[in-house]
This record gives sequence, C-alpha cells and structure tokens, in this order.
Amino acid sequence: MDEVIADAVAEHILRYNRDHDAKITKDDLHGKWLWDVVSLDHHPALEAYLRSEDFFEVLDVMPDAQRVLEALQRKYEVFIATAAMEFPTSFMPKYRWLERHFPFIPPSHVVFCGNKSIIHADYLIDDNPRQLRLFSGEGILFDSPHNVAVTGFRRVKNWREVEAMFL
Amino acid sequence: MDEVIADAVAEHILRYNRDHDAKITKDDLHGKWLWDVVSLDHHPALEAYLRSEDFFEVLDVMPDAQRVLEALQRKYEVFIATAAMEFPTSFMPKYRWLERHFPFIPPSHVVFCGNKSIIHADYLIDDNPRQLRLFSGEGILFDSPHNVAVTGFRRVKNWREVEAMFL
Repeated sequence: MDEVIADAVAEHILRYNRDHDAKITKDDLHGKWLWDVVSLDHHPALEAYLRSEDFFEVLDVMPDAQRVLEALQRKYEVFIATAAMEFPTSFMPKYRWLERHFPFIPPSHVVFCGNKSIIHADYLIDDNPRQLRLFSGEGILFDSPHNVAVTGFRRVKNWREVEAMFL
Repeated sequence: MDEVIADAVAEHILRYNRDHDAKITKDDLHGKWLWDVVSLDHHPALEAYLRSEDFFEVLDVMPDAQRVLEALQRKYEVFIATAAMEFPTSFMPKYRWLERHFPFIPPSHVVFCGNKSIIHADYLIDDNPRQLRLFSGEGILFDSPHNVAVTGFRRVKNWREVEAMFL
C-alpha cells in the first residue's frame, strides 16, 4: 500500500513540516528515507504520526493506481498486501481506506502482514527492496525517492508503467 | 487461529446458549458448523457475536498450543495466519490476544488475510478444509467438530500430535 497505491510519505512530510517549521520535500529524499533526513531527536515524532489513528485513512491515492488495478483484476488475481503489523493502529484506517478507494478488491484479497516472505504470488510490486528480497516470486520495484539507487529488480516508475508491463 | 490455537467455537456456543436459553455442546457439532445447528433466524445473532469488540480477545488457548508452537519455533519459521478480513472488528482483539498468549511470535510473523491461497509456506495447519484446498503447500487438517467427515488431508487431533509429527 504505502508508496505504491497510497502516498504515505507525502502525508508524513506534510505533518512533520507543519509541526517542526520545516520545508522538506520529496526531492530531499533522493536515495533516503524520511528517517534519514530528520534528526534523531525528531524520530519519536515521526513514529507518532504513523501511530496516530487518522494517518493511514487520509492518504492520497497514487496516480492511476485505481484504474490500473481494476484493469489488472480483469486478467489477474490481485491481492493487496501491506506490512501493517508494525503499526496495529493502522489496521482499521487501512481497511477503511481500501474500502473507500479500492472497493473492487474484496476483503478476501487483502493481507496485513509483516515479513512478505509469507506472500505466495507470481509478482510483488513493492517500493521496499527488503520486502522484495524476502519475496519468493518476481519482485518489481515501484519507484520511490528512497529506492532510487537500488538495483537488481525490474523497476516501474508509476502505474502506467505497470499497465504497460502487464497489460 | 480460530479452532487451532484459539477456542472460538466454545465462546461462540457459550454466548449463544446464554442469550437463547439453549444447551448446545461441541458434541452437537459433529460434522457441522455452529451455523448448521442454529436456526436461520438466529444467524444474525451468531454473526453479531463475532463482530463484537471483545469476542476474539477472551478466547481460551487450545491445549498445548503455546508449548508446542514455542518448541516448533526453535526448528521452523512459524507464522500465524488468520482469516481476519471477514471481521475487521477482530483485528485489534486478535492482535492483543496473540501478544498476550503467544508473545514469542513477532508481529512480523503474523498475517491477517482472507483467502489462504496467498500464504507461502511449506505447511498450513488449519481446521478449515476450504482454506487447505486453496493452500499451495501441504495442508494439515486440525481436528474440529465441523470437519470430522473431511478426508484428503493428514489429520492431527491436537497439538501433541503436531508435536509428534514435526518434532
């Protein structure tokens, strides 16, 4: 979900900037996680945003994600798998967010997990190289500021490229 | 989780009997789900119990589940996968129940899913033959009143038999 169909980092930056009079942009995250550009003493604040009840419910949908996933679903069996276990407060917000923005994905095809080695699928589209390395199928790296330097996976820049690749 | 490490059906029967002056026991479920022995007009009540906030948090642990899972974990990578997506209100109660009774299972190894075809593992121990049929690895049927007539899987009667099989 995060950084692939949901723009979590935009909301994370927005909240951090708002509360800390900062001006971080996505461009500042070239090759880095937000955690890498924020000083250590502000890390508890970064974590608190992720644990707040509303965070995962207000995220913007990534461009073309709805249209392309709905099209993919006509040809493939599509699951949404998200590493939600680290943030139990995210369960309900994530569930409701999916219901609202991806109503065509049935709950039977939603997975809240931790380690994605447990996912049995042909492909995993993920921004996180650690999860792609754990995954047993073919990992496809979804472009994100933090992963620009990562190699070893097919990379897609956006959902239009996913569409071109699979459809 | 349910009927394998958590005794959900006992709690379900208890609540139904208490509110409907009934005397159903597990023995009455020989070859049937609770849904099959309760009249259709009481099905909304059965469903409401599963949707109540506390249901999945108060369940008893199945005998020997803790001891055997902890022992299995020394030799195997153990995940807990539960079809929680049908009951979103169960997310937090299930998470807290696992934290309390199975603290040795890290959140990274907990999976809330729907359809267990998405689970990538060598073995799945489950009471539900439908999930075992969807599963791509070797399914092991955990004995439960509703599944007594099911064939086609290795069957374990309890966690001591799981222990004998794997350890």
